[in-house]
Order: sequence, then structure tokens, then C-alpha cells
Amino acid sequence: MTILVPPSGNVKAHAFRLQPGDSIKENLCDIAQIVFARTPPEECSSLFVMTAVGSLKDATLRLANASKSKEDIKSSKNEVKRWENQRFEIVSLVGTFSKDGSCHLHMSISDDEGNTFGGHLMAGTVFTTCEVVLGSIHGVNFQRQFDERTGYKELLPQQILLEEKWFKGSSIIKAGMLMMLGYSLHHISLPRRS
Amino acid sequence: MTILVPPSGNVKAHAFRLQPGDSIKENLCDIAQIVFARTPPEECSSLFVMTAVGSLKDATLRLANASKSKEDIKSSKNEVKRWENQRFEIVSLVGTFSKDGSCHLHMSISDDEGNTFGGHLMAGTVFTTCEVVLGSIHGVNFQRQFDERTGYKELLPQQILLEEKWFKGSSIIKAGMLMMLGYSLHHISLPRRS
Amino acid sequence: MTILVPPSGNVKAHAFRLQPGDSIKENLCDIAQIVFARTPPEECSSLFVMTAVGSLKDATLRLANASKSKEDIKSSKNEVKRWENQRFEIVSLVGTFSKDGSCHLHMSISDDEGNTFGGHLMAGTVFTTCEVVLGSIHGVNFQRQFDERTGYKELLPQQILLEEKWFKGSSIIKAGMLMMLGYSLHHISLPRRS
Repeated sequence: MTILVPPSGNVKAHAFRLQPGDSIKENLCDIAQIVFARTPPEECSSLFVMTAVGSLKDATLRLANASKSKEDIKSSKNEVKRWENQRFEIVSLVGTFSKDGSCHLHMSISDDEGNTFGGHLMAGTVFTTCEVVLGSIHGVNFQRQFDERTGYKELLPQQILLEEKWFKGSSIIKAGMLMMLGYSLHHISLPRRS
Repeated sequence: MTILVPPSGNVKAHAFRLQPGDSIKENLCDIAQIVFARTPPEECSSLFVMTAVGSLKDATLRLANASKSKEDIKSSKNEVKRWENQRFEIVSLVGTFSKDGSCHLHMSISDDEGNTFGGHLMAGTVFTTCEVVLGSIHGVNFQRQFDERTGYKELLPQQILLEEKWFKGSSIIKAGMLMMLGYSLHHISLPRRS
Repeated sequence: MTILVPPSGNVKAHAFRLQPGDSIKENLCDIAQIVFARTPPEECSSLFVMTAVGSLKDATLRLANASKSKEDIKSSKNEVKRWENQRFEIVSLVGTFSKDGSCHLHMSISDDEGNTFGGHLMAGTVFTTCEVVLGSIHGVNFQRQFDERTGYKELLPQQILLEEKWFKGSSIIKAGMLMMLGYSLHHISLPRRS
């Protein structure tokens, strides 16, 4: 790997709760798209999971050997596992969202005996709640590009070259007020000199 | 679900280490309250787990079917599991803290064979260390509101309407100094004109 | 534990993807050092994992009872477990990085049946991808100090006393423009009065 300086920027968090019966993956992706739609693309188009805590009543995970890469293509094992009508606690959720609508989420869940299961999140239904905090990175764009080594569109984080805004709205107003104040002071002080 | 724009704001991190023998949940909640106490409530009252790495010598988790919702109320299975005098690595910690003192934390831990267990964190004692980074969201308030569908007080993230401060203390002083400098310059340059 | 206000500061995120065949721990540590090298040490020297999603084809974890503390020193069980030529999904990664090159990372991974394993990350090879977001905390330093209670160098987060920069580059230019504009206004307004 050629190691380069990774794209970086300040982090903004977006917090929400999913409701009982919500489809977790669909809702996360929908909310990601809403956040993207509200963010100027020239400033930021990156989102990732910062924390998620909640419960599910069913879950569908694609398991580890389900990868479609060349090395794995002979695998005939069942790729996707579905747990129905159970109760799970969400004990971890990791991943990223891209503006093209795609997301890459892995999750681990724990059952009624404390055992945990994990994999690539395909679907799940919220049981009581799912509290989520997503993060966006100012000045960073998450694109996806097909990688023939893996057979997937893989993440390509990119630094956005931000134009520095010299005078923002509020700065212009402040500058104007300062100048008006200076002008008034001279009207007061000049007569004494003539 | 009606999907709305989620409350958002810039993220500040708060980093600390818990010590051997510390009660993990109590200490996390205490530190959360200290951070809340030091933060102007009109600016921010939200906290969540960004990362936690460490080890425990005992752990008490409420398991997945322990939910008190209507659908689960007939359940008679053991709800809470306690592991004593063992060693666990903390491999995930997720969740949120609210200003009213409540928190919602899920954790997964791994034992001496690498097996993992997970659930709702009730208690645990730090073995060697627990390094934690919490995040707060500027302009966001984490409230909890009773939800009769779940039987719990559930998270309600809210956007705080921040008043833009036109002139902060330091800005006023800077502006004043600039104006005085400009004023002095004229006193020096004016005599040449009269 | 004496509870103190934890060191805090604004969060900057650093996003990147590891490639197939990359050594996950080495690469994470290398990239952490690159980020440290690019950051003025008087402003920030702290890094932690915000999210990581990907897959491994082998993994080496130090298990929970592998701690070298006094209480555990009699333990003769195998401390480190290595899984070779398998496929795993990364379902959680937590931990911190320090400027001295050390890092403290715990991970949980899931196999082809959805079972999860976890422990202290010693090594692992990326299978298809590993998308990572690290966070740095402005004004916070992550040091490590030997703790005789644990036998390890443990994290000591410290607040950096930041000097407020009165005049940044752009501010000087703005101030100069304001003063020049005020000066010109006088040349225009003075003749009318004399």
C-alpha cells in the first residue's frame, strides 16, 4: 500500500431515533440521503456511523464467506442468514454512506442468552428503538469506485478543495458597522481642529 | 416513519481513562454529568460513545429478551446475566447519555477463548483500564420521553436554536483596538494637510 | 476514582480505505503516524477509531486472559489465537493511538456462520477492503504512562493549553483592508469641510 495523507475535516454529528417497526437499513439510507441533500456538495458528501444503540425483532446478515471475490467464487455455502421473530440487542454498528445511495454497514447483535452474531447488514426491523448518531466530514467526499480485485464498488474518500470565503454575510455586516462608527467619530472630532 | 432532517451540530470529544476497580457504568454516567455541568445547556446537552477500549473483571448485562414491552411481557426467562471473577476485553460499547442522568449503553465483551457476549450494560468492574472517548453535539439536546409502545423513556434528539453572537468579547476588543489605531494615524497625518 | 473534567476539543476526522492484502494493524499505525506528523503537536496529538468496516482473511487476537497484570501472571493458558485462511467480517473496532507509535485496539469479527470472536488486535490481513474513519481531538494529547498496577503503559489524555492566535493570516489582510478603506473615506470627506 502506498500510504498517503488521508482526507480530513471537521466532524458534524446528526442524531435521530428510529421507531418500532422501522426497517433499519432503509431508514438509515433514507436519512443519509436527506442529510446529503441538505449539505452543499462542494463542502461535504461523506457520512459514517458514530454510534447506534437499540434492538431488533428480526435481522438479515450476509455472512463472512459471502464475498463475491474471485477467491471465494466456488463457495456454495448459504450466504445470507435470516433470524425471524426473535429479539436482539444491537451491540455494534459500523460503516459508511455515499451520496450515490450506497452504504456499507456491518453489525453485531446479541440474543436472549447473550450470544452475539455478526455480518454485513442486509435488513432488520426495529423492536423498541434505535438511537443513531451519524457523522459527516467537512471537506471530504465519499465516492465509490468499482474494484476488480474485489468485485465491489469500494470506498474512495477524497479531499474537496474548499474555496476560502473571504467575506461571509455576517462579516460584511460587521465591517460595514465598524466603518460607519469610524465615520461618525470623525464628524465629532473634526470641528475642534478647523 | 416520517423522515425528517435530523438535529445536527459540530462534535466535541471528551477523553479519559477509567482506573482498575472502577465501576464502569457509574463512572461513565458521573463523567457524563460533569461534562453536562460544564456545558452551557443552551448550547449543547447531548453525549454519546465514540470509542471505548479496555478490560473488565466482571460484567452484568441485560439480555435481548429482557425488554419490558407489551409483546414480551409473558417472557419468564432470566433477564440479566452476571459474569463474576472472569476477564473480558471490551470489544464494543455504543450508546447515549442524557442530561437527566439516564444513559442507554450496549456492550460486547470477549472471553479467554475469544467468544463474545453482548447486551444492555447494567454493571461491570474495570480490570486494567478503560479508555473512553465521548462526543457532544453543539446545538443538540438529548431528551428522553416516555414511549408507551416500548414502556421506556426513549431518546428525543432536538435542535437547539442558537442565537448568533454578533460580537464576542474578544472581537469587540480587537475591533476597538483597530479603530483606535486608525484614529491615531489620522492625528499624525492630518497636520500635513492644514 | 477521583473524577475530573475530561480533556476535550473539537473533532477532526481522517478517512481512508485499506487495500486487499494490507496488514491492518501496521497500516492503521502507519497512517496514525502520518496524521500525527502533519498536525502541529502543540495543537493536537490524539487519535481514536470512529468507525471501521471491512473484511479480513486472517486474524490474530490476544484473548482476554492474556493480560500481564500481577493477578493473572500464573495463567498458563494460550494467550494469543490465530485464525488463518478464513474469511471474517469486521463488526467492531475500538481504540486509541498515541504519538509514540503505540496503539490500543480491540476488535470483533464474524465468521461464515455469523459467530463472532473478539480480543486485542495483534494482526490481520485485509481481504477485500477496510474503510476506516479515525478522529483527532483539537487541544488534546494522548500520552502513555507506565502503570505498575497493570504492567502496561496506559493512556493519559491531557488538555493542551492553546495560545489564542490574535491575528491569523486572513485576519491581518481583513484588518488592513478595513483600515485602508477608512483612510480613503477621510480623503474624500475632508476637502468638503475645509
